[in-house]
Amino acid sequence: MSNFRMGIISAIYNGIPKEAQITRIEFEGPEIAVYVKNPSILGDKMDLVRKIVKEIKKRIVIKADSSVRKSEKETIEIIKNFVPSEAQISDIKFDDELGEVLIKAKKPGLVIGKKGLIQQKIFVETYWRPIIIREPPIKSRTVESVLTHMYNETEYRSKILKIFGERIHRELLFKDRYVRVTALGAFQEVGRSAVLVETPESRILMDVGVNPSVNFGERMFPKLDIDQLRLEDLDAVVLTHAHLDHSGMIPFLFKYGYEGPVYTTQPTRDIMALMQLDMLDVADKEGRPLPYSAKEVRKELLHTITLDYEEVTDIAPDIRLTFYNAGHIIGSAMAHLHIGDGVHNLVYTGDFKYARTRLLDRAVSEFPRVDTLIMETTYGVQEQTNRDQSEKKLIETINNTINRGGKVLIPVLAVGRGQEIMLVINDAMKKKMIPEVPVYVTGLFDEVTAIHTAYPEWLGKEVRDSILFKDENPFTSDLFKRIEGYREDVAHGEPSIILATSGMLNGGPAVEFFKELAPDSRNSLVFVSYQAEGTLGRKVRDGAREIQIIGRDGRVDNIKVNLETTPIDGFSGHSDKWQLLNFLGDITPKPRNVILNHGEANAIREFKKVVERQRRERLGLGGANIFAPTILDSLRLA
Amino acid sequence: MSNFRMGIISAIYNGIPKEAQITRIEFEGPEIAVYVKNPSILGDKMDLVRKIVKEIKKRIVIKADSSVRKSEKETIEIIKNFVPSEAQISDIKFDDELGEVLIKAKKPGLVIGKKGLIQQKIFVETYWRPIIIREPPIKSRTVESVLTHMYNETEYRSKILKIFGERIHRELLFKDRYVRVTALGAFQEVGRSAVLVETPESRILMDVGVNPSVNFGERMFPKLDIDQLRLEDLDAVVLTHAHLDHSGMIPFLFKYGYEGPVYTTQPTRDIMALMQLDMLDVADKEGRPLPYSAKEVRKELLHTITLDYEEVTDIAPDIRLTFYNAGHIIGSAMAHLHIGDGVHNLVYTGDFKYARTRLLDRAVSEFPRVDTLIMETTYGVQEQTNRDQSEKKLIETINNTINRGGKVLIPVLAVGRGQEIMLVINDAMKKKMIPEVPVYVTGLFDEVTAIHTAYPEWLGKEVRDSILFKDENPFTSDLFKRIEGYREDVAHGEPSIILATSGMLNGGPAVEFFKELAPDSRNSLVFVSYQAEGTLGRKVRDGAREIQIIGRDGRVDNIKVNLETTPIDGFSGHSDKWQLLNFLGDITPKPRNVILNHGEANAIREFKKVVERQRRERLGLGGANIFAPTILDSLRLA
Repeated sequence: MSNFRMGIISAIYNGIPKEAQITRIEFEGPEIAVYVKNPSILGDKMDLVRKIVKEIKKRIVIKADSSVRKSEKETIEIIKNFVPSEAQISDIKFDDELGEVLIKAKKPGLVIGKKGLIQQKIFVETYWRPIIIREPPIKSRTVESVLTHMYNETEYRSKILKIFGERIHRELLFKDRYVRVTALGAFQEVGRSAVLVETPESRILMDVGVNPSVNFGERMFPKLDIDQLRLEDLDAVVLTHAHLDHSGMIPFLFKYGYEGPVYTTQPTRDIMALMQLDMLDVADKEGRPLPYSAKEVRKELLHTITLDYEEVTDIAPDIRLTFYNAGHIIGSAMAHLHIGDGVHNLVYTGDFKYARTRLLDRAVSEFPRVDTLIMETTYGVQEQTNRDQSEKKLIETINNTINRGGKVLIPVLAVGRGQEIMLVINDAMKKKMIPEVPVYVTGLFDEVTAIHTAYPEWLGKEVRDSILFKDENPFTSDLFKRIEGYREDVAHGEPSIILATSGMLNGGPAVEFFKELAPDSRNSLVFVSYQAEGTLGRKVRDGAREIQIIGRDGRVDNIKVNLETTPIDGFSGHSDKWQLLNFLGDITPKPRNVILNHGEANAIREFKKVVERQRRERLGLGGANIFAPTILDSLRLA
Repeated sequence: MSNFRMGIISAIYNGIPKEAQITRIEFEGPEIAVYVKNPSILGDKMDLVRKIVKEIKKRIVIKADSSVRKSEKETIEIIKNFVPSEAQISDIKFDDELGEVLIKAKKPGLVIGKKGLIQQKIFVETYWRPIIIREPPIKSRTVESVLTHMYNETEYRSKILKIFGERIHRELLFKDRYVRVTALGAFQEVGRSAVLVETPESRILMDVGVNPSVNFGERMFPKLDIDQLRLEDLDAVVLTHAHLDHSGMIPFLFKYGYEGPVYTTQPTRDIMALMQLDMLDVADKEGRPLPYSAKEVRKELLHTITLDYEEVTDIAPDIRLTFYNAGHIIGSAMAHLHIGDGVHNLVYTGDFKYARTRLLDRAVSEFPRVDTLIMETTYGVQEQTNRDQSEKKLIETINNTINRGGKVLIPVLAVGRGQEIMLVINDAMKKKMIPEVPVYVTGLFDEVTAIHTAYPEWLGKEVRDSILFKDENPFTSDLFKRIEGYREDVAHGEPSIILATSGMLNGGPAVEFFKELAPDSRNSLVFVSYQAEGTLGRKVRDGAREIQIIGRDGRVDNIKVNLETTPIDGFSGHSDKWQLLNFLGDITPKPRNVILNHGEANAIREFKKVVERQRRERLGLGGANIFAPTILDSLRLA
């Protein structure tokens, strides 16, 4: 036992009353779990615990020793007694290793109780620590199977949490201090995001994505094969959001020797696993080699530690991580690293939207401290159409199409834009701005919507309040008809709106609907997201009037494209040029270094020029350094 | 045996006539040694060997199999028969492992013979490969003991050369290619030079110096303790010159696990060892902890492979090194790296003088290819006094001082400036521009002068020709009186000139002479080199009229400084601002990247501005990138 951990343990023993009867103290990942025989004595003395937390600056969780916990049967009884039946508990699972009981309910707020009173009562009476989660109104296979998997492997999970804990809570070994970042992917390009942060004590990878526009070869992955990066020496992976260009290669790390934790948010964890498995599935169908298998996705899940926004967490001996809302997709986060007790503070934005959308609140721009900002620059040169204009255009297109007896096909990406469009349509229909035609939703996108309904707390204030307090859930609205894949009767039925994946018409039911709807000029095709070079979506958007599509049976269909196509660019989950500049103008405190990433070389170059021109006056950044590194550049920040 | 080496071996077997009877082929460091039983057959067929060299692009040396070599006794007889007695052979040593015979002679040219005929005859008759070196006219303990040490350890040396050889001549493992440099020392500062060059295949350290102005702590060394740099994975160390701020920490690498080669020039090898041992000696006397011991200096010597200027040498599977004259001190080199068969070409200048001095030719500015230039910027803002003006001022000062019955004390650095001043004084006396008073030379500087006399081929054309062809050696001129340390009778004798180390009056006989000469206003003190902050030299140069000096016995001497002090800055071994710019203007071909190092932050910043302004028109560098990295920054070059 190191002196450092001994110090923490003494502080806990000295701070907690003897009568609580501590039996053991475990370093469980970033938390320190104090197992006691008599936790009830601490019920009204939580200020003592808070005092210790303040002293040692570590997260402490009080748990009951297994010897004093009630039996599972008794515990279930007690929970059912305390919790009103309106909560609609659907499942109760036990984690004997960590002393936790998972309670799944349709209305988790009623399990928690006012000011957390019921939750606390359950603990005091059963000595099991309640973990309360929502049973989503739309059943999500993903959320379901992630949880089942985690609760089937509690022993393994408890074991690795202790290994993580020992590693995080060790004393510092080096007197010398430096902080260095290395560009591994998504620098002077978009795709395969990865940044290495290095101090004498620790190494952290932020995002490990694939390049979605490349199917094979070294440009598909971030540069992970350099000397500097030995997977077994990596302390942590931090994931900002679930899109594959940020998350897609994390399981690959586990395939090649990584054994550490992945820190992310709860929604990101579930969507990430869904997206990764879908990628494997598609690659398999297309006969491409798989970079990893479902086995590594499962391992990744067991190694994932979820954090809430603004929850400060030790992830390495000298690094504290805090996530902040990034406004990009559900669960998306900016990562704040507090390094070496203040030697350096780094904010990595990941993808972010510096504007409110219907789905999410605007990204955060206030941080406790910032020395260096690594920010995305996807739209460093582009201005997007105004948000209200975009909604107006969508509504107008829908109205025109329906009025002439047509159908509206909206190809949507699985995560983010589709849910946003659902909210727009739901609102417009409720306000009678468009007629109440059926709105069909289908494809992978629908499963992602289900995950959204499991985590309403992670949505923007308006929709969150509507779901939690007014019991009005737009995603479960009767207006939406959930269908499985493509349906003939929908394609040839009455006027309707169809939301379907994939968003670039390169697979999924969207393509099948397109084939049927394309020849009829009464129909409309609305693009609400970026159409990459080489996709069917791009061809159609660029005006192709005849298209060849190879069917699964190998037959080539010649499709006449007569429907009306309408691209609308105002729904992006990325900040446009002005929003990026506003963010730089608003961010407090002001960083000394700004590192631009996640943008094509041209976008970065132009945006850098603008920032350098406006640095002092408009942006208030003083003489801040603006960097635009390329892959394999390293920058010493402190 | 790898396919790659098999390929080389086949090429040799196929190219060399059977009658030569190859017995084995060894990879001896960067050379491939072909041992044959019948080397004489190749005597007139060297074009065959050259053809193979061209084909496999490797250096081949033909050696005789030990079974056919003459006995040592017979060989000595044969050598003495062939070599005229005027050559004055002083020693003959055998390296049985490598089949080499070392012949030391006062006039090595006479051992080599016209067009190398005698040298070749010795080989053909004895089957020992003659290595001919100069017995210096001034006996150098250093040169002596380095050679003795190497010839005492021929077995070890032959063993490690084979290990180096296997490592250099292996096939490439990675398809992926990149070149990356990392700043480890002497970036935005002067001192502790070190640059790491990294490819997927190899890692090369260029220079590993100490920070002479710091006696302890992390700022004393380059940043060697980062993840990226594992000493056991390092392929080679390349040393540009012997000054401790470039060479001082190389033995430290051997202390902590490095087992690879050190590439440098012959003069650098000897002076480097002398300087390192002196540093240990001084640190020991001052009671400071030693970073390594003499043991590691000895190991370093055994691992050193010396190269001539413009000799192309494989030092890693994908890197070829060529040294070019840098004009800074004897043996100083610019390092040219040809990487990945042309993927990238890098020139690292080390310290360089882009102007002819009496001692050395001007640094080279023409290279086969250059993509990136790493250049020193020590005098990025300073202009030096014109060279002729400086000599005039020195002569004037000497004349004035002698005329008024005083003595001239010139503190000199051990390497470079002192020898330059000797040449100036020698010339002036011969031309009767100054009276023929005694010129005393003393201190470490004198041993370094002896090393200069061992390597006249490495000096500038004029002095080299004078020594080799006119038999006039200025260093052995009768004008110079070599004395041991401080001498009372010199300090209190007739008018004279005293050249003594150390150059900044922080130790050595220079200080003792200063104490005696300071109070007498007839005397002069001439500074010909940089005086660092905190040194006695700096205080005096800045005008102190009273000085306290603590003697070895702990007694404090109060010294009145009445002598005349004259700083002359035109003898620097560094390029001044204009010379740096001229070099950039002259260099061919033009680099795409210029990385500025080895300068204070201010000098680099200002020089960078000038270069950026003049980049296109005056310097013809087009849109070249000008970088000024800080320590721990990495730049990807290809």
